[in-house]
Amino acid sequence: MIKIAICGGSGYTGAELLRILSGHSEVEITAVTSEKSAGKRVTDLFPHLHKYSYLIYEPLDKEKILNKADVFFMALPHAASQEAVDYFFKNGKKVIDLSADYRLSDVAVYEEWYKTPHNYADTLKNAVYGLPELHREKIKKSSLIANPGCYPTSAILGLYPAIKEGIIDIETIVVDSKSGTSGAGRKADVGFSYCEVNEGFKAYGIAVHRHTPEIEQELSGIAGKKITINFTPHLVPMDRGIISTMYGKMVKKIDTTAILDIYKKYYDTEPFVNVLDEGVYPNAKNVRGSNFVEIGLKVNKRTNTLIIVSAIDNLVKGASGQAVQNMNIIMGIKETTSLESLAVFP
Amino acid sequence: MIKIAICGGSGYTGAELLRILSGHSEVEITAVTSEKSAGKRVTDLFPHLHKYSYLIYEPLDKEKILNKADVFFMALPHAASQEAVDYFFKNGKKVIDLSADYRLSDVAVYEEWYKTPHNYADTLKNAVYGLPELHREKIKKSSLIANPGCYPTSAILGLYPAIKEGIIDIETIVVDSKSGTSGAGRKADVGFSYCEVNEGFKAYGIAVHRHTPEIEQELSGIAGKKITINFTPHLVPMDRGIISTMYGKMVKKIDTTAILDIYKKYYDTEPFVNVLDEGVYPNAKNVRGSNFVEIGLKVNKRTNTLIIVSAIDNLVKGASGQAVQNMNIIMGIKETTSLESLAVFP
Amino acid sequence: MIKIAICGGSGYTGAELLRILSGHSEVEITAVTSEKSAGKRVTDLFPHLHKYSYLIYEPLDKEKILNKADVFFMALPHAASQEAVDYFFKNGKKVIDLSADYRLSDVAVYEEWYKTPHNYADTLKNAVYGLPELHREKIKKSSLIANPGCYPTSAILGLYPAIKEGIIDIETIVVDSKSGTSGAGRKADVGFSYCEVNEGFKAYGIAVHRHTPEIEQELSGIAGKKITINFTPHLVPMDRGIISTMYGKMVKKIDTTAILDIYKKYYDTEPFVNVLDEGVYPNAKNVRGSNFVEIGLKVNKRTNTLIIVSAIDNLVKGASGQAVQNMNIIMGIKETTSLESLAVFP
Amino acid sequence: MIKIAICGGSGYTGAELLRILSGHSEVEITAVTSEKSAGKRVTDLFPHLHKYSYLIYEPLDKEKILNKADVFFMALPHAASQEAVDYFFKNGKKVIDLSADYRLSDVAVYEEWYKTPHNYADTLKNAVYGLPELHREKIKKSSLIANPGCYPTSAILGLYPAIKEGIIDIETIVVDSKSGTSGAGRKADVGFSYCEVNEGFKAYGIAVHRHTPEIEQELSGIAGKKITINFTPHLVPMDRGIISTMYGKMVKKIDTTAILDIYKKYYDTEPFVNVLDEGVYPNAKNVRGSNFVEIGLKVNKRTNTLIIVSAIDNLVKGASGQAVQNMNIIMGIKETTSLESLAVFP
Repeated sequence: MIKIAICGGSGYTGAELLRILSGHSEVEITAVTSEKSAGKRVTDLFPHLHKYSYLIYEPLDKEKILNKADVFFMALPHAASQEAVDYFFKNGKKVIDLSADYRLSDVAVYEEWYKTPHNYADTLKNAVYGLPELHREKIKKSSLIANPGCYPTSAILGLYPAIKEGIIDIETIVVDSKSGTSGAGRKADVGFSYCEVNEGFKAYGIAVHRHTPEIEQELSGIAGKKITINFTPHLVPMDRGIISTMYGKMVKKIDTTAILDIYKKYYDTEPFVNVLDEGVYPNAKNVRGSNFVEIGLKVNKRTNTLIIVSAIDNLVKGASGQAVQNMNIIMGIKETTSLESLAVFP
Repeated sequence: MIKIAICGGSGYTGAELLRILSGHSEVEITAVTSEKSAGKRVTDLFPHLHKYSYLIYEPLDKEKILNKADVFFMALPHAASQEAVDYFFKNGKKVIDLSADYRLSDVAVYEEWYKTPHNYADTLKNAVYGLPELHREKIKKSSLIANPGCYPTSAILGLYPAIKEGIIDIETIVVDSKSGTSGAGRKADVGFSYCEVNEGFKAYGIAVHRHTPEIEQELSGIAGKKITINFTPHLVPMDRGIISTMYGKMVKKIDTTAILDIYKKYYDTEPFVNVLDEGVYPNAKNVRGSNFVEIGLKVNKRTNTLIIVSAIDNLVKGASGQAVQNMNIIMGIKETTSLESLAVFP
Repeated sequence: MIKIAICGGSGYTGAELLRILSGHSEVEITAVTSEKSAGKRVTDLFPHLHKYSYLIYEPLDKEKILNKADVFFMALPHAASQEAVDYFFKNGKKVIDLSADYRLSDVAVYEEWYKTPHNYADTLKNAVYGLPELHREKIKKSSLIANPGCYPTSAILGLYPAIKEGIIDIETIVVDSKSGTSGAGRKADVGFSYCEVNEGFKAYGIAVHRHTPEIEQELSGIAGKKITINFTPHLVPMDRGIISTMYGKMVKKIDTTAILDIYKKYYDTEPFVNVLDEGVYPNAKNVRGSNFVEIGLKVNKRTNTLIIVSAIDNLVKGASGQAVQNMNIIMGIKETTSLESLAVFP
Repeated sequence: MIKIAICGGSGYTGAELLRILSGHSEVEITAVTSEKSAGKRVTDLFPHLHKYSYLIYEPLDKEKILNKADVFFMALPHAASQEAVDYFFKNGKKVIDLSADYRLSDVAVYEEWYKTPHNYADTLKNAVYGLPELHREKIKKSSLIANPGCYPTSAILGLYPAIKEGIIDIETIVVDSKSGTSGAGRKADVGFSYCEVNEGFKAYGIAVHRHTPEIEQELSGIAGKKITINFTPHLVPMDRGIISTMYGKMVKKIDTTAILDIYKKYYDTEPFVNVLDEGVYPNAKNVRGSNFVEIGLKVNKRTNTLIIVSAIDNLVKGASGQAVQNMNIIMGIKETTSLESLAVFP
């Protein structure tokens, strides 16, 4: 059995890791940390995780926890993750970091957007951006996975074939994303209280959201040249799910059917990406609780624009599910293990 | 007292007219029609309208109803509205049509998007597009008001100053709109049942939604040349509200503050449009149940793009509230009468 | 114009007072206090209250505020309200207290359930429990109104005629109540965050909720002997609304129709209580945003039990609306002023 | 591999059977029927079931389908199920009926509550009420399982130990239940449209709901004498979940702790029933998407009443999950197979 530690296990991504791994036949959870909830049982915070009645949150004492596990899932806040990731990685452990600390390969870009220094530039060089659909071969050989952000996962998978095939003008990309509220994490904040979110809808972080450079980095990698995008996140009154609606002016004459064929070819062997038939569009509800991605698209001939829509569950393919997928890959386990559950609908 | 008939009063816009007019001191409701609910009391369908316990739905018998009222609110389905509007208008009544039948001044455009002939081109010439912020003077003199669609209201008010002032490139406009479910009307349809909508989010009608030509007509009028846009509507799991997020490449060097100043000047005397301060963005929740509009915006300097966000209640400013506003204008009543209620929050 | 101060105006009941009073022709708001938000504009917290752009929160400095207003609405937390109420009352002001501090006439009962001393027993004697349907004549003559709790309003109005007429066995009363989330107030608390409340449903405070003695006090007053009840509150994933389902074994042979007749007679002249026809039951949605109450009932002949259901909006008839109703009564204004808006549905 | 047919597979319980069985290692789905959707793919109705892209709905032709499967899950409407169940049962198949047709052992009671004749009284005698916690041994030997209703599952499991141990007066039982909207099934009905359900809460079917005799039958069986109850269902604006709050006057002197000990002993070996610690109460959210049951309770000493709360997912333990549990039992498979997933939270 592979021994697993979850550092920062009192938030939604930590709880979701536990939920997903509860059906994994080849792992056991040996430690889960939380500073604020140290001493409490996991089930005190999350009664639905009753299978883990034996698990007690402990403070993150790196030396103490080092030998307890083979794989470390790091679900710490940004910046806080840097040092702990570095420590476990340098001590020969497999590390899957769900924070943003090792996602941006350019330290300067990280520091500009996250307003904090990055003190582990050397370790950063070893990190692989953990989007299997783009980087599976690199992930296989890596011990340090920077697990992608939720919005970036939805945007990059949606735009990948269109950019790679040169279908759209990379100067015109708009990513208009809508996320369920769990994306904000588990916290006491009036702004995310039920009565403020329910029956409301709003944009936030317009032009300044930190997932912007992450999306740009990967799209630029695909295109082979620098891409700058418009990215606008919105808050949806639902628990889970991200829908990204993406726009790009077309530079090739090609119709919806033909683009769908290209997309289907790109994602044909991908276990978690479903390209929908013409006229069918993604719904966050169809992927809720699952690691699956839905992608649909349409050419607007009147404006010569390609419109792509993708749907993921932000806590699964957008976080903990993708983290487990990465773990399966780096540990040589069947990639889909414990990730095949269909969405809970309705 | 002005006598009011509501034709097609068993849907949400009909009920909303009754709700709003219940606080109007200068009107009385003398007839309300519904084919399907004829013979039923209004309160059988809508217990919350208990003040109207005397009102019984009757079938729409034009001759019979003609002399019952001075003002006719037409909340009939598209196409069905054409003839009845023509009839009441030609018989000298004031008509406010909430359907799309008299919104598009070009019959050919109407017929292309609505797939049905328009048989009253002559009457159509008398119709004024009932967006007071753009056409107040024309509305004053008109007896036939084509009340704007919900999405168009949100999009046009959001883009008006930016287009009028030549701030954005009119070839690059994206309108990404999100609507609460009441926009679909009151109907028995699995696709709009609670369990299908709740905890879901999806785009629909991509590149083919019928509100597209309506938005384009008004934006073209503002610009003085033909505008074609990308318009994508989405369904939000909430009852009411539309948020439109709009993008346009900038053709002028101007910053957020300066554009906000322009917007505030444009809407300074408008009783229902609130331009928000820099850094504050609209929320559907802030206008719920009210006739108010919120507009916020931000320049993305990295992409040289203006991003504008607007919020309305689709049933009020996007339908019945605006209809009452138009009635107030054409009847010479204070424009804000019975429309000053603040949003119900939370 | 009557000058109004709202003490504790940064919560939902404070904001709701402002919303309701915005349509009141005979008042002006002259002060609104908040310790935490002192110095902020009301619109910083509540953009939907844009009509009050001039209002700035100030700390509650009793001496300073005393002469600013004629009527003081007190929306402070329990215990914190005691002294301030006493001060304004003793200085000759009209006081409407939305806290629980002056609702329980027996100091010992208050101290047992609220675990805090009551230091103003003398002032307490002057307080009238502000449920107009029961105590209108006393309210008229009073300057200190203890505005009822939300659950008690729904329970007492539902049970009043049945107890008064001796229809049910007062030893068997069950009040099973369900409240929207705004009942918990506006606060940063993980337990009331969107993701914890949405798609959930739970009972809380079983057998220990503080509204129990308040319901019992009023029911006992109606019966003329001591009543003890089972009261179980539940949290519903919606913003507003309380539904109380009440059970009592019947001690009279009487059918549903006859009991409805009695209820209709009791509430016939009440402007805000609607007794529904046989077979029709209340829905929280039908009263949302309004001061109205819906009551429906049914005799279960198989078990010889009367089941009564009532619906109110917890923030309106259950708090701020009732407070304004009380103000209208004590100030000799028409009781329904600014309270006649119908529910916002859907 | 066990071959499975699902008769009536286009509703939510049918879809949920497919979802749950998608993770079952010992079964394959060989047929799924629907009259209305015959010829359509399962994925046309339910995109989230993409693993079943090969499955096409067929009409229910009994002769044709008979040899296609070993186990028949019947998810047909009440009354429609009678004949088909009889047919498959008499032809030697294992039948698990999710309708109410074989739940009530007394034909007269069935006919009174369902207003339709029961034409298969002989087959009815072979049916076992499929609540494993009460009837596991009988289920093991049976080929015809009447899968319990959702409300009855929640009520019976909540009351079982209290009644069996003679703790409560069986003349005083109140079951106040609250269900998510999926309990109403997948249908086009204005009353269950999003805008009518969302932000609403109501009781329905007071004193006349058809699950009443089913609960009474099982409780009477436990008590060894006839029990009549008050049962009131309510509609909650959420997709899934039932919370039942139950009341019974106590006839024994015993405290909360001691009753919890009894409950824990009763359910100790049950794989799906979790009795919560003192002071902790069930939440529908903690069991969503899972086959688990939460039970909590409290003695109200002031009224000498026991209050019990239970939570289930109506589509899982309240329908399709319990059906699979029954299948596992009758087929000699490990009872928990494909049912161990934890709840999807949040």
